Amino acid sequence: MSPSPPAEQARRPPVRFGIMGCASIARKLARAMLLAPSAVVAAVGSRSEAKARAFATDNGLATAAPRLHGSYEALLDDPGVDAVYLPLPTSLHLRWATAAAAKGKHVLLEKPTALCAADLDAILAACDSAGVQFMDATMWMHHPRTAKMRELVADEDSTGDIRVINSLFSFRADEEFLHNDIRVKPDLDALGALGDVGWYCIRAILWAVDYELPKTVFALCNPVRNQAGVLLGCGATLYWADGKIATFNCSFHANLTSDMTIVGTNGTLHVTDLVIPYEEKSAQFSMATKSKFAELHIGWDPLPSKHVLPTDLPQEALMIQEFSRLVQNIRDAGGKPDGKWPAITRKTQIVMDAVKTSIDNEFGPVDISS
Amino acid sequence: MSPSPPAEQARRPPVRFGIMGCASIARKLARAMLLAPSAVVAAVGSRSEAKARAFATDNGLATAAPRLHGSYEALLDDPGVDAVYLPLPTSLHLRWATAAAAKGKHVLLEKPTALCAADLDAILAACDSAGVQFMDATMWMHHPRTAKMRELVADEDSTGDIRVINSLFSFRADEEFLHNDIRVKPDLDALGALGDVGWYCIRAILWAVDYELPKTVFALCNPVRNQAGVLLGCGATLYWADGKIATFNCSFHANLTSDMTIVGTNGTLHVTDLVIPYEEKSAQFSMATKSKFAELHIGWDPLPSKHVLPTDLPQEALMIQEFSRLVQNIRDAGGKPDGKWPAITRKTQIVMDAVKTSIDNEFGPVDISS
Repeated sequence: MSPSPPAEQARRPPVRFGIMGCASIARKLARAMLLAPSAVVAAVGSRSEAKARAFATDNGLATAAPRLHGSYEALLDDPGVDAVYLPLPTSLHLRWATAAAAKGKHVLLEKPTALCAADLDAILAACDSAGVQFMDATMWMHHPRTAKMRELVADEDSTGDIRVINSLFSFRADEEFLHNDIRVKPDLDALGALGDVGWYCIRAILWAVDYELPKTVFALCNPVRNQAGVLLGCGATLYWADGKIATFNCSFHANLTSDMTIVGTNGTLHVTDLVIPYEEKSAQFSMATKSKFAELHIGWDPLPSKHVLPTDLPQEALMIQEFSRLVQNIRDAGGKPDGKWPAITRKTQIVMDAVKTSIDNEFGPVDISS
Repeated sequence: MSPSPPAEQARRPPVRFGIMGCASIARKLARAMLLAPSAVVAAVGSRSEAKARAFATDNGLATAAPRLHGSYEALLDDPGVDAVYLPLPTSLHLRWATAAAAKGKHVLLEKPTALCAADLDAILAACDSAGVQFMDATMWMHHPRTAKMRELVADEDSTGDIRVINSLFSFRADEEFLHNDIRVKPDLDALGALGDVGWYCIRAILWAVDYELPKTVFALCNPVRNQAGVLLGCGATLYWADGKIATFNCSFHANLTSDMTIVGTNGTLHVTDLVIPYEEKSAQFSMATKSKFAELHIGWDPLPSKHVLPTDLPQEALMIQEFSRLVQNIRDAGGKPDGKWPAITRKTQIVMDAVKTSIDNEFGPVDISS
C-alpha cells in the first residue's frame, strides 16, 4: 500500500468515528478527533443514551452533534460510522472488536489489546476477514519525535548495534485507583500493571529493535499483586540471540516515570517522557554518539545532543490522522488494510504473554519462537 | 571522628603523597594532587627510576620535585611519604596495599580494590592494625552534585521509598584495549569489565539505598568474555526484602554511558554522566517529584527540575582533599581512621563477589547475609 500524501488525504471526506464506551481515556481521544482534520466524531455509544449524551456534552462534541447510542450494538449498526475507537475494559475487547469488524467497522483498539495473544489473533482474524484496518492506540508511536528517534536508532554511525535497552513506566496510583479502577479488577483488566504500563515498556523495547522478537524472556522475581491476584508491578529481562538485552519495570506504586534508554555500540539515546511528552507542542530526547572521555578523563567529548521536535498536532491527533489515512485509502481508493500495525500489536502481545507465563512459572525462562 | 573545618584543614601541613605506579589513571590523580591545597606529591615510585622520572616530567610535577623511586619498596620506605595512591593492577593490590599499611602509610586504593572480598578484608585488617586511613578512589562520591543528590534521595517528600534503580556504565573499547589493556588480562585484572565499569554501577546502586546490602543477587544471563575468560560485559539484578530492585549492565563493547536512574514512591532522579561529569566546572542532574499527568493527560505537571552544581575543584581533587583531611586529622590531631569509607568499599566488593558467584553458578541466585 502506498501512503497517500497529505493533500490527497485532505481532499477525501473525513473518517466518521464512533466512540464505543465513555472511559476516561476516551475524553482525550474525543479531543484528538476534534483536532484531527481527517476525522469527525459521528457517534458515541455507551451502555445508556444518558451516559453517551453526558460524554458528548462534557467533551465539546455539541457542534459535531454525534448520534448518541444507548448500546454498543446500536453503535455498530450505525451506517454512518466508518470506524470505532474502542476503550472498553480489556476483557471486553475480544467480543466487541470482533463484533465491530464483523459489521465492517475499522478498529482503533485501546491497549492492552487483548488478555492474551490468542484472543488478539481472533480479533485480527476478524479484521482480516472483513477487510478493515486494525491499529492499537499507542499514541507515542505517532509523534514526530518517534520518527526522528527511529532515524537515529536505525543509523549505524549514530547508534550502531543495540546492546542494552532499559524501559521504565510507572505512576503512583492513589487509594481510589488501587481499590476501584478497572485496571486492578481481575474480571475487567486481568493483566493489571503489565497490561497498562507494561504494554508501553514492551512496545518501547520492540520499537527499539525494529520489532525483532527476543529469544528468551525472564520475568523479574518481585512482582507485586493485589489481593485478587492482579499485578500492580512487575518487570522482565529480554534476551536476543546476538547478545542484546532489555530490561523493563512497570508499576502502579512508583512516581510517574516514562523512560527509554537505548545503548548501542556507537550511540546512546535517552528519553524520559516517552509515552506522553512533558509538553504538547514539542518533545525532546538526548542522543550521544561516539562518546569519549576527554584527555585525562576530565569531561566528555563530544557532549550529547538535545533534539527538540515541535508538532502542530498532539500525538493522539496524529494517530487519528494516520489511522484515518489508512481508512480513507480503503474506503475511498480501493486500498487494502496496512498489515504493519497489526503485526506490531501482535508482537507486543506475544512478549506480554511470555512475561505473564514466566511470572506464572516462578520466573523461569520462556522461549519465544519467531 | 569530627570533621575538621576547611580553615583548620588549611592550617595543617599538606599530606605528602607517594604515587605508587605510573598507570594512566595516575596522571589524572597527579593533577588532582597539584590542584588540591592540602596535598603535595612528595614521591613517585615505579618499577624503574626512569619510569618514575618520565611520569614526573610528563605530568607537570617538576616544581613539586618529588623524590623518584625505582621500586615500590623504596617508595614505602620513604619517611617523607604520609600516604600512597595505589593504581596498580588489581592482582597486586593485596600485596602492596598491605605492605603500605604495614609501613604506616595511609592508603588511597584504586578500584576495584581487590579480586574478592576476602582479599579486601586482609587489606582493611592491615590498615586497621596500622591505624591508617583507607579509602577507595571512587571520585564521583566527592562531587558536590553527589551531596545534593543524597539530600534529595534521602528526603521522604522528594523521593520517598526507592522502588527501582537502574545503572549503566559502558564504554566502547578499541582493538588495542581489547588485546592489551590490563583490564582484559586474567593475571592482572581478572574481574575485567565487572571490576572496572561494573564497580561504579554497584557503587551507584549501594549509594542510592544508603548502603543497605541487597538480599539476593542474580547475574544477567548474557555475560561476554574474551578468550582468556575475562568478562568484557555483564550485569545483574539485585533484590531487597522490601521489594526494591536494581539492575545494572556494564560493558567494554557499548558507547560510553554512565547512567543512574532512581525511582521512588514520590520522585525520580536521572543522571547521565555519573562517574565523570560532562564538564569539569559544573554537573547536573534531573529530579522529578510527585509527577502527574496534566488534565486529559496531555502533558506533565509538575515538570522535572534540573539541578546544576558548580565546583571550584574537580571531583578527583575534592577526593584528595577529603582523604587528606582524614589523614591530617590522624597525623596532626591524634584522630582515628574514619570507618565509613572502608565499610562502603567492603559492601561494594561483597556485591561484586555475589555477581561473580552468580555468573559462575549459571546465573542462579546468590544470597547476601548482611
